Amino acid sequence: MKITSQHIADLNKIQDTTYKAELNLLESKLSKRGISLENVINKVADFQVAIPSWALGAGGTRFGRFSYGGEPATLEQKLDDIGLIHALTKSAGAVSLHIPWDIPQDYKAIKELAQSHDIIFDAVNSNTFQDQAGAKHSYKHGSLSSTIEASRAYAVEHNLEVIKIGEQLGSKSLTVWLADGSSFPGQRNFQAVLQQTENSLKQIYAGMPDDWKLFIEYKPYEPNFYSTVIQDWGTSFMLANACGDRAYTLVDLGHHLPNSNIEQIVATLMYKGKLGGFHFNDSKYGDDDLTVGSIKPYALFLIFNELVYGMENNPQNPYPAWMIDASHNVKDPLEDLIQSLEAIRIAYAQALLVDQAALKAAQFDNDVVLAQELLQDAYRTDVRAILKAARVQSGAVADPIAAYRSLAVRNGLINERGTGSKATGL
Amino acid sequence: MKITSQHIADLNKIQDTTYKAELNLLESKLSKRGISLENVINKVADFQVAIPSWALGAGGTRFGRFSYGGEPATLEQKLDDIGLIHALTKSAGAVSLHIPWDIPQDYKAIKELAQSHDIIFDAVNSNTFQDQAGAKHSYKHGSLSSTIEASRAYAVEHNLEVIKIGEQLGSKSLTVWLADGSSFPGQRNFQAVLQQTENSLKQIYAGMPDDWKLFIEYKPYEPNFYSTVIQDWGTSFMLANACGDRAYTLVDLGHHLPNSNIEQIVATLMYKGKLGGFHFNDSKYGDDDLTVGSIKPYALFLIFNELVYGMENNPQNPYPAWMIDASHNVKDPLEDLIQSLEAIRIAYAQALLVDQAALKAAQFDNDVVLAQELLQDAYRTDVRAILKAARVQSGAVADPIAAYRSLAVRNGLINERGTGSKATGL
Amino acid sequence: MKITSQHIADLNKIQDTTYKAELNLLESKLSKRGISLENVINKVADFQVAIPSWALGAGGTRFGRFSYGGEPATLEQKLDDIGLIHALTKSAGAVSLHIPWDIPQDYKAIKELAQSHDIIFDAVNSNTFQDQAGAKHSYKHGSLSSTIEASRAYAVEHNLEVIKIGEQLGSKSLTVWLADGSSFPGQRNFQAVLQQTENSLKQIYAGMPDDWKLFIEYKPYEPNFYSTVIQDWGTSFMLANACGDRAYTLVDLGHHLPNSNIEQIVATLMYKGKLGGFHFNDSKYGDDDLTVGSIKPYALFLIFNELVYGMENNPQNPYPAWMIDASHNVKDPLEDLIQSLEAIRIAYAQALLVDQAALKAAQFDNDVVLAQELLQDAYRTDVRAILKAARVQSGAVADPIAAYRSLAVRNGLINERGTGSKATGL
Amino acid sequence: MKITSQHIADLNKIQDTTYKAELNLLESKLSKRGISLENVINKVADFQVAIPSWALGAGGTRFGRFSYGGEPATLEQKLDDIGLIHALTKSAGAVSLHIPWDIPQDYKAIKELAQSHDIIFDAVNSNTFQDQAGAKHSYKHGSLSSTIEASRAYAVEHNLEVIKIGEQLGSKSLTVWLADGSSFPGQRNFQAVLQQTENSLKQIYAGMPDDWKLFIEYKPYEPNFYSTVIQDWGTSFMLANACGDRAYTLVDLGHHLPNSNIEQIVATLMYKGKLGGFHFNDSKYGDDDLTVGSIKPYALFLIFNELVYGMENNPQNPYPAWMIDASHNVKDPLEDLIQSLEAIRIAYAQALLVDQAALKAAQFDNDVVLAQELLQDAYRTDVRAILKAARVQSGAVADPIAAYRSLAVRNGLINERGTGSKATGL
Repeated sequence: MKITSQHIADLNKIQDTTYKAELNLLESKLSKRGISLENVINKVADFQVAIPSWALGAGGTRFGRFSYGGEPATLEQKLDDIGLIHALTKSAGAVSLHIPWDIPQDYKAIKELAQSHDIIFDAVNSNTFQDQAGAKHSYKHGSLSSTIEASRAYAVEHNLEVIKIGEQLGSKSLTVWLADGSSFPGQRNFQAVLQQTENSLKQIYAGMPDDWKLFIEYKPYEPNFYSTVIQDWGTSFMLANACGDRAYTLVDLGHHLPNSNIEQIVATLMYKGKLGGFHFNDSKYGDDDLTVGSIKPYALFLIFNELVYGMENNPQNPYPAWMIDASHNVKDPLEDLIQSLEAIRIAYAQALLVDQAALKAAQFDNDVVLAQELLQDAYRTDVRAILKAARVQSGAVADPIAAYRSLAVRNGLINERGTGSKATGL
Repeated sequence: MKITSQHIADLNKIQDTTYKAELNLLESKLSKRGISLENVINKVADFQVAIPSWALGAGGTRFGRFSYGGEPATLEQKLDDIGLIHALTKSAGAVSLHIPWDIPQDYKAIKELAQSHDIIFDAVNSNTFQDQAGAKHSYKHGSLSSTIEASRAYAVEHNLEVIKIGEQLGSKSLTVWLADGSSFPGQRNFQAVLQQTENSLKQIYAGMPDDWKLFIEYKPYEPNFYSTVIQDWGTSFMLANACGDRAYTLVDLGHHLPNSNIEQIVATLMYKGKLGGFHFNDSKYGDDDLTVGSIKPYALFLIFNELVYGMENNPQNPYPAWMIDASHNVKDPLEDLIQSLEAIRIAYAQALLVDQAALKAAQFDNDVVLAQELLQDAYRTDVRAILKAARVQSGAVADPIAAYRSLAVRNGLINERGTGSKATGL
Repeated sequence: MKITSQHIADLNKIQDTTYKAELNLLESKLSKRGISLENVINKVADFQVAIPSWALGAGGTRFGRFSYGGEPATLEQKLDDIGLIHALTKSAGAVSLHIPWDIPQDYKAIKELAQSHDIIFDAVNSNTFQDQAGAKHSYKHGSLSSTIEASRAYAVEHNLEVIKIGEQLGSKSLTVWLADGSSFPGQRNFQAVLQQTENSLKQIYAGMPDDWKLFIEYKPYEPNFYSTVIQDWGTSFMLANACGDRAYTLVDLGHHLPNSNIEQIVATLMYKGKLGGFHFNDSKYGDDDLTVGSIKPYALFLIFNELVYGMENNPQNPYPAWMIDASHNVKDPLEDLIQSLEAIRIAYAQALLVDQAALKAAQFDNDVVLAQELLQDAYRTDVRAILKAARVQSGAVADPIAAYRSLAVRNGLINERGTGSKATGL
Repeated sequence: MKITSQHIADLNKIQDTTYKAELNLLESKLSKRGISLENVINKVADFQVAIPSWALGAGGTRFGRFSYGGEPATLEQKLDDIGLIHALTKSAGAVSLHIPWDIPQDYKAIKELAQSHDIIFDAVNSNTFQDQAGAKHSYKHGSLSSTIEASRAYAVEHNLEVIKIGEQLGSKSLTVWLADGSSFPGQRNFQAVLQQTENSLKQIYAGMPDDWKLFIEYKPYEPNFYSTVIQDWGTSFMLANACGDRAYTLVDLGHHLPNSNIEQIVATLMYKGKLGGFHFNDSKYGDDDLTVGSIKPYALFLIFNELVYGMENNPQNPYPAWMIDASHNVKDPLEDLIQSLEAIRIAYAQALLVDQAALKAAQFDNDVVLAQELLQDAYRTDVRAILKAARVQSGAVADPIAAYRSLAVRNGLINERGTGSKATGL
């Protein structure tokens, strides 16, 4: 199943074009404020988000998994799936591999396949939260944070191998999500495990090529239910500083305690030049891994408002690595990812519409009402026409979900792969 | 300070009219789905929300209050303030009085004043969370829930007096927010205080005129920090059932534990015909009483989606009494209320745009992706042109905040009333 | 592996007996307050908690499972494991079966085996949150709440079969935990699924023998992450009332939003005679299913304070069905359960020590300080000597964890069953 | 009203002495584990906690305040009240002043008065969350974080004055609780206010004497309801590092998001030598400021377990400044403080009983069950006899609440001061 440029052209012929009238109206409004609509469209078109290799099949909970047919069973098929999404949206031009689930057999072939889909290899991800068959040491009681030297060394070694795999594919960064922690008070010594984690991360950092970046993810709980070693941005930031200049914090939207102000964390990290990576999803209760923008789209916009501000005002902060990190328990994974990509670009486009000069003035005047009006004016604007224009000018379709359905992509995949294939190592 | 129809006409002449082009575009889109834009505008125009008499001055926290000049010091001035808001928006055509803070001296004059502003008297509110000067019994340890008969009787008596005051003004409902609870484990006996509360509410219910409704508000905590007698909708619903057919639950958006699904509570109550009143505000942490729609506008939309559904499908549920219940700590209270009114009508208009037939079909098909698309299509629509049209056709201005500022209303009020007046009994 | 009375006697000979001196001191203190220590010991000794058949192997999270050796692979082995716990503690004299994971092949043999372990069959549990191999209908999008009649009927039918299985074993109650809900706004119609759930539960209720009870469990989220049909005690209570007199609410400690006051819910339900079942566990973040008392032992005590009060003052409430519902991700499941049983009895014993008469007087006097002192006096008392005495007089050991380890029970089980056996259907 | 040593002696003659038998039993148990009971008693006796000058009157909420008679109206009376508590408990030998509420008129007299009560002056607290009468600049929209230079300078100047006042009294540290933040998205620029806060704190730090310490408090919300500039330990830690070696983080137990693992934060800060101050209270929902240990005593114990560990293992961390920071809405403030002092010492004593060597071994062996047993063994021990012994040997009473009541202290204060006095500047 592959989507060709002919498919795209045919689809765009029949899809609704009323968005063009909306664009005109929008242009006249924006030009009054000195904003170039063309410029916004171009920025939106350039915004690419990596798809993780583990997110192309059915997700699940500890109570089970309801499978979806046509899941990709090999790395090649996973790349093909991302290729389908990218062809329809031109917004998913990268893949983020999970090792050991996705170790390539033939690097050259894999790279060519990715290239054929216009996909690059973004950050690689290590896994020390699971024991693989035949593992010499167990991670049941900790990996990088273990107080037992052999276990720790084993986990460090794994990360170094992941870097080597990434190097061969053109990746330039390693993401470490450390699930280590404890489920009961007293189980582990907080100071000792923090110290060991710092040591381990420094070893991994030392083993990275000079042009690589290390992303340190944080999360308050799950799979451990009392404590997690890297529980919050403060811990990640402290560890990143201990490692060195090319170590950064990675923010995952679902990895926060209830009521957290994530946009403030983003602003703080960018102010300090330490926001390295960003994982998109949405949630109502915990790390629910729902479709981006499905629960709290305004919070997403406020976060993007800080991201846009930081990208424009914090040259010391690297361009962040964007990735969707969601789970697909009740939706077709490809449709789910398309919805996430749409929500991300909507929030980004809205943030680009914020009148930053007027906002700064209102803030300086402590005109709280006006500051809110300015933000909400951008947020309340219907920017979907901008996304459609960006997609069409990039060679994708105006309406990807409709296109996906009219091409009957899922049926095609089931025909090719059957209903029993499984995408995940979980 | 009064806003005349001439003011309105003058303002509308100079305010931006590009919203009319947006309306045309919207109409062409909606008509394809069989939705009448005119009908939507009319419904939006009819949607009126009560302003509580205590919300016209500066709010505060336990750490203090930063006052605003020109606050209304009398009930007459409070009505005048609501009159200003209503003149600009034609969406605040009701007042909700708080007793004993707002006992009229001259009922006839007050009613005439309200009428001159096109304002009716909605639910009246009792107060048993404070001790008034010279009170015979203290509410420090409970009022309607007290295990001491005299205190309980005193609180019941107060509620009956509030009803009598309301009767003379044309109110038809009493809202009971019971702050009673405890701040420490063991302080009070849960079963005993619940039983006494049930008894007290039954006495109040028995004292209402036959065409009155009783609204029972719930709240999990604050001002008590361990338990609150009516802590959740389940308790309120249980008590309302115990009282009788004209007793209902009142939902205040800020009165829920973190992560609550409020829209589901709304749906459940309407399904049972027991949603009587609704207090609007917004919050990030607790009962923050922020401007409506300033933090979680999508949640507000989802709630309105249930309200619209219920108003169309649950004839046994009365038309709910709407009220804004916010605190104005850092904004001009009148501007804050105008922003809240705008956010409420935006959410209402969006909910009216939901394609209910298509949504039902998607739900029956378990097409989760499509169901989300349908909701978000309505939500992502920029409906502000609808609100402007609704306001203008009702004799208000297209852009109330801009009008408020161009008329320099706050300065006018400060000139009239000075900077030391105080609106609240807190 | 079986623990005989000779084992017990031998162990008690060598275990520490200094608790007897503590008992004497306790007796002298309690007798001054008119409390009989003997009476407390007897009540503690009588307190039995059911073990669920699914809790005897390693639990897991969506990120994986670290297995434990010697897990029971059959229903017979599960009963043997509970028998081991019961022999050591004499506090786990019941099992709660999960269907279809534990359908007996030979009812007579199973009943005899249970009897040999002094174990009775408590509430049976149905499962409509998973699709079994060869299932005619999927529960992916709902079971009892489905708007599709065939799916709903299939789920009702399953529950009726579970009742039939329970009848043959001597169970007298059915627990329904309904995982149904939605992960995205719009996915399902709240009112429709609530109505269908009510209908389905009524059919199940109608199919129960006259001496059976129906327990309706509630939970706010997981495995669904936007809404759950029976989200809170209010919904469960409403549905139980709709079903009839023998339908009750079941409280699981982990099934609440952050900061919930669970003891107040317990008091309300007992006041209304509707607390049917109780699932013990502990948690810090969500439904973490940790060892009872490992995170919030004071909250557990406060809950027991209400349970003891209700058992003494609410004759209309049935004696609740107690069960441990925990997951064993990092501990030996049998040791974990022993720790939970200990924590439950500690909280129960402490609650029995509360001076109820003095507490009532302090509450009536609004003497908040004294009320707290009275509760904390009971809580701060070291009651472990009471538990040891209760166990020894019942024929169990003073210190079960020490006994379990000195008998090398786990090694014995591994020798018998190997390391690859699996206890759960998850 | 003053409590003399004769009062103490008389009271101890009549108070219950059965705790001595419990001590003997405890000694025999502890000696087996090589722990000296005498040593524990001495450590407990030495543990002193500061009382803040604002905590001696009735607290309140934004809904009002129910006053208590006999409140101290002057700084002298406040010191007298702390003197009463200290005389009864010998555990409150310090006061923490709040400026400008407590500026001494006569420094020499105040110091002598404090000395007569055996009270020292601990950290001084500044106040930039309120506007004082006649203030030249308002803190309504920010103080140390203001983007307006004059406001910022005004706030810095105030802090420097507070330091000067503290110097004259013998204080050695300044606590900055910065309420600055925003209640609405967009209100303030996160990066700008963080930068200004850093600058302001550096100026204050530069103005401190060389032997002073700066404590930077954090809090997620209230009185601002969208963002707080110093929202978490990570931000405080980052700012403390920016200021210098003598700047530290201050932890207030009530200043965390729901479900936070505070003990891990404590461990992290002590590991880095940056835990400077500690404010005790308890809470169920937010910053409820309840009596210490009244809601989550086990969490308090776990925190003390880390504090004890840090005090023994982190020589680079200064001895923390302890203070109670609670509000007394429904209890006599002095009784409330006595209950808090008791709860603090109970948790401390329990933490001292933890078998650290055995715990370390269990942690290294990943024996999760044993680690929990070891912690809970200490926690479940009734240590109240240790507190009584510590008090009596220090010249205080065995049972302070009973003593306070038998001396009718509150009545004495009401007789002296009347019922209308007010202790707070709020």
